[in-house]
Amino acid sequence: MIRKSVFAGLLSLMCVAYAGLALAADASPPTGSSSEVFYAEPDSPLIPPKGRKIRVAFVVSNPFNLIDMAGPMQTFVQAQLPPFGDKGAYPFETFTVGDSKQPITAYGGLQVTPNYTFDNAPDADIVVVGAQSIRDKDGYFSYLRRLSANRKVVMSVCTGVAVLAAAGLLDGKVATSHHDYIDDFSKRYPKVKFLADKAYVRSAPLLFTAGGETSGFELALHIVQLYFGRDVALKTARSMEYRGPAWQN
Amino acid sequence: MIRKSVFAGLLSLMCVAYAGLALAADASPPTGSSSEVFYAEPDSPLIPPKGRKIRVAFVVSNPFNLIDMAGPMQTFVQAQLPPFGDKGAYPFETFTVGDSKQPITAYGGLQVTPNYTFDNAPDADIVVVGAQSIRDKDGYFSYLRRLSANRKVVMSVCTGVAVLAAAGLLDGKVATSHHDYIDDFSKRYPKVKFLADKAYVRSAPLLFTAGGETSGFELALHIVQLYFGRDVALKTARSMEYRGPAWQN
Repeated sequence: MIRKSVFAGLLSLMCVAYAGLALAADASPPTGSSSEVFYAEPDSPLIPPKGRKIRVAFVVSNPFNLIDMAGPMQTFVQAQLPPFGDKGAYPFETFTVGDSKQPITAYGGLQVTPNYTFDNAPDADIVVVGAQSIRDKDGYFSYLRRLSANRKVVMSVCTGVAVLAAAGLLDGKVATSHHDYIDDFSKRYPKVKFLADKAYVRSAPLLFTAGGETSGFELALHIVQLYFGRDVALKTARSMEYRGPAWQN
Repeated sequence: MIRKSVFAGLLSLMCVAYAGLALAADASPPTGSSSEVFYAEPDSPLIPPKGRKIRVAFVVSNPFNLIDMAGPMQTFVQAQLPPFGDKGAYPFETFTVGDSKQPITAYGGLQVTPNYTFDNAPDADIVVVGAQSIRDKDGYFSYLRRLSANRKVVMSVCTGVAVLAAAGLLDGKVATSHHDYIDDFSKRYPKVKFLADKAYVRSAPLLFTAGGETSGFELALHIVQLYFGRDVALKTARSMEYRGPAWQN
């Protein structure tokens, strides 16, 4: 009845994901720690593109952690500009990007087919990286480095921060992650200063890292606020009946 | 680049979903209101099956609201029994059920292929119904009525409650929904007593209805608690870094 092999495999998803990321890190070991750490101005606004929606790419691999993607995706796609209600405009559009268009499985058994691949994805304004295993490390890192070099917003959720760290995007910067991984990542990526007990950290003006899992809501709401102000973010949270308070702090 | 037709269509998803449910309701109009309303004992425990995991089915249609499914799916699949950590067992297994195995699209553009159909899904112990449009109303209602008649747990999230109401499962009972729809559903389903400002309501011993969207986390955590106690639910919330407090009230 239930396909046991699939479900058994999913139970060890988090370990699989972390093992994959560890491999990525081992492939390019850190060479030393930095004494200078960059703290970005936390509340400097983000500027939306003119004449079109803000494009948000969610990188998904096999397997990936469902809520790290679903929380920010729902937040961005539901954010609405005034006038709110039937006439309000929606400023974000969202899509998934994988290393191929083959179906993949999320934590919980959800079967997902990526909308695009690294090679044919639309130019993104924001890219979201949640906890996931990695198959095409070169393609993945190239994609992130290209977006970052083009001054796009890059954000991680949960242990997705390890992808950014392994790609070298966080050297000399502050960051956060799931509370169970702060110590391990601090040792693994000594050029990154990991902060505990944070829903999110602005690691650089266009680089953000969130804590574990549902912390992705907090960071996505914060980014909505940085683009469109507090009232739009509050309306978005209310429309989702989201109860987490951290992004308002 | 961006497939505009898909994204334009998704922007009106909520309206589509609600219109579909309105059609379902119009097909079997309520015949009168009930003066007696059933309030279930809120904290009576739920009993897991022996010797196997608790099977949780998520009904998904085209389109469906992403977070109504993803929040409870992540909560159930991440719930862990003591001893927590590497040796802890995971008592829930989750899967999606659709009216066919054709790929469908969730709010945000996520392409999902259902794991099963109404006809071949494993027997579920819990079924989760979020906001969604309905194509095969007869198949959907039959599936829910069969599970309910077999004393399985049925839970709705957001406007998914309208499916339960239209299927007649909530007659003479209390319920809740997204805050924007309490008034409309009260008129549309006069046999159901809709309560506002609730994260969730236990409508009957095995029938639960949640408020809007992320209220699904609250209800899923509450159900975890009813099966396995407060410590397991607290650990689950903490492992997700979930900040919503309503389920603990």
